Amino acid sequence: MKKAQILLLLKKERNQFVSGEDICKQIGVSRTAVWKHIRSLREEGYHIEAVTHRGYNLTDVPDRLYPDEIAESLNTEFIGGRVYYYHSLESTNREARVLASGGAPGGSLVVAEEQVQGRGRMSRGWFSPKGLGIWCSLILRPEVQPGEAPPVTMLTAVAVASAVEKVAGVAPGIKWPNDLLVGGKKICGILTEMSAEMEMVNFLVVGVGINVNTSLEDFPEELKEIATSLYLVEGEPVSRLKLLKQFLRDFEFYYRRWINDGFGPILEEWKKRCVSLGCPVRVSSPREVWDGWAEDVDSDGALLVRMPGGSIKRFVAGEVSLRNN
Amino acid sequence: MKKAQILLLLKKERNQFVSGEDICKQIGVSRTAVWKHIRSLREEGYHIEAVTHRGYNLTDVPDRLYPDEIAESLNTEFIGGRVYYYHSLESTNREARVLASGGAPGGSLVVAEEQVQGRGRMSRGWFSPKGLGIWCSLILRPEVQPGEAPPVTMLTAVAVASAVEKVAGVAPGIKWPNDLLVGGKKICGILTEMSAEMEMVNFLVVGVGINVNTSLEDFPEELKEIATSLYLVEGEPVSRLKLLKQFLRDFEFYYRRWINDGFGPILEEWKKRCVSLGCPVRVSSPREVWDGWAEDVDSDGALLVRMPGGSIKRFVAGEVSLRNN
Repeated sequence: MKKAQILLLLKKERNQFVSGEDICKQIGVSRTAVWKHIRSLREEGYHIEAVTHRGYNLTDVPDRLYPDEIAESLNTEFIGGRVYYYHSLESTNREARVLASGGAPGGSLVVAEEQVQGRGRMSRGWFSPKGLGIWCSLILRPEVQPGEAPPVTMLTAVAVASAVEKVAGVAPGIKWPNDLLVGGKKICGILTEMSAEMEMVNFLVVGVGINVNTSLEDFPEELKEIATSLYLVEGEPVSRLKLLKQFLRDFEFYYRRWINDGFGPILEEWKKRCVSLGCPVRVSSPREVWDGWAEDVDSDGALLVRMPGGSIKRFVAGEVSLRNN
Repeated sequence: MKKAQILLLLKKERNQFVSGEDICKQIGVSRTAVWKHIRSLREEGYHIEAVTHRGYNLTDVPDRLYPDEIAESLNTEFIGGRVYYYHSLESTNREARVLASGGAPGGSLVVAEEQVQGRGRMSRGWFSPKGLGIWCSLILRPEVQPGEAPPVTMLTAVAVASAVEKVAGVAPGIKWPNDLLVGGKKICGILTEMSAEMEMVNFLVVGVGINVNTSLEDFPEELKEIATSLYLVEGEPVSRLKLLKQFLRDFEFYYRRWINDGFGPILEEWKKRCVSLGCPVRVSSPREVWDGWAEDVDSDGALLVRMPGGSIKRFVAGEVSLRNN
């Protein structure tokens, strides 16, 4: 708390010296306490010069998704209201499930600098190298039945797309059911999981992985062709912190809209951003392949494909994979 | 394995002596091994006389739900295929969730002699005293979507009712949504929980609590009026082991029927056993109360109540509680 206040003060006067005495007065702590907090901030990667008779000067902020950095002028009502931060996790979804089972409140954010066992849908892996992306999970406790939860994945896709557009200036397309693409390559994946009784969701965990500053050499060989990052698209690094905060704000906006107005308006926005509709597609299950024309997505998020004979076939995510033909 | 074989041999010749030599020959173990297994069985509560030159005589079997006892002529294909046995657990559902997350196969049974934090639906408690009931959970891995899972609770109610009828000779009625009553008092509760991705159930845990040999003094004051046990109904103890095994067989029967033929036939049987239909009921939510006539249950398990004005109101379990008027 006091540490965060000191940091904020140094940030306001960034690249200028603030005297220890001023810090003591403004924050209400002792000189020893100031020094302890400064040392702790340095350990976290903040570059702070200390010069006798002049004071402290913040010259550099580390590229980390620290809770205090996320909280600073976040201005959400409950999303990100509590932040669980880790240098490294097996997977943020896994940790979020454990925290949620232990009672972590709705809106809690779990964020890790790296995931060593990041997971995507259907037990696929998710490459999550240290410090190069946003690997996070939100804990949500909507009062809905299990069958009413799927829109959360779609509103998350809309929120990520919206945040990326605002912060990086590029609008990702949504590939059904819930990947975000730029230039045909994957920039973000979403994995929603739930714990429920039959008639009542206990909690949802929405995991989001965004490739932010991954360079081509960082990607393993098998991903170079199918994945990309904002850095690769923009040609320069993008602030993970800025993007994460914008995502939290946009997520809260769409989440509240879903709770208050239902799924209709979000589905419309989802469709506008979707790149899988209005084009020929191939849908594959482990046993079968269908070629057709992706016509629409229904209110349950199922894909409606016009078959060559003219009939409509309905596909549910989780059963099939899709590619544009 | 060898221990189970020795036990089976002694059971076949129950109340007669079997010589140590015979055991060695038939099971293929050394005299020392026989002695070690006999000692271990005694520790588990089996009464086994040992007389020089005559051998071993099984005179009493403990009232425990040991895995080997459950496995003996169970004759199911996969339900109860693996048994996790505990003297005491916080709750069998909780342990089952942990085991399922760790990869325990579908059909696995978790059983405890007592639960110190037994749970019912909607975070209510469930009284689970040591050795007096069946407190167990099944892990299931059906390939369904989250919205398709609710029938599992209803088929469990049918399976318990069927097993109780066969073993104890009394047919419990089902109170919507999923309690079993005898003489208007609760004899069994069911709590189904699930872990899922949006389009795919990961696993279900079906918890079942059956009051078998609880006496009136065992029940806490607040339950005496609303709960009962098979012992109280029958006037004599009922074999927990026999009942549990019958339940596992009946559960497998109805579960396979659901997978193969859908929910229709089970819903019909559920309705036949239901005591909440065709009578005046009061439905209560935390905020409202409705009086009406319970007319039917739809294919999603929702209760359809004819209101005084003639219209039909649909109630979903988890939102309301019900009592007959």
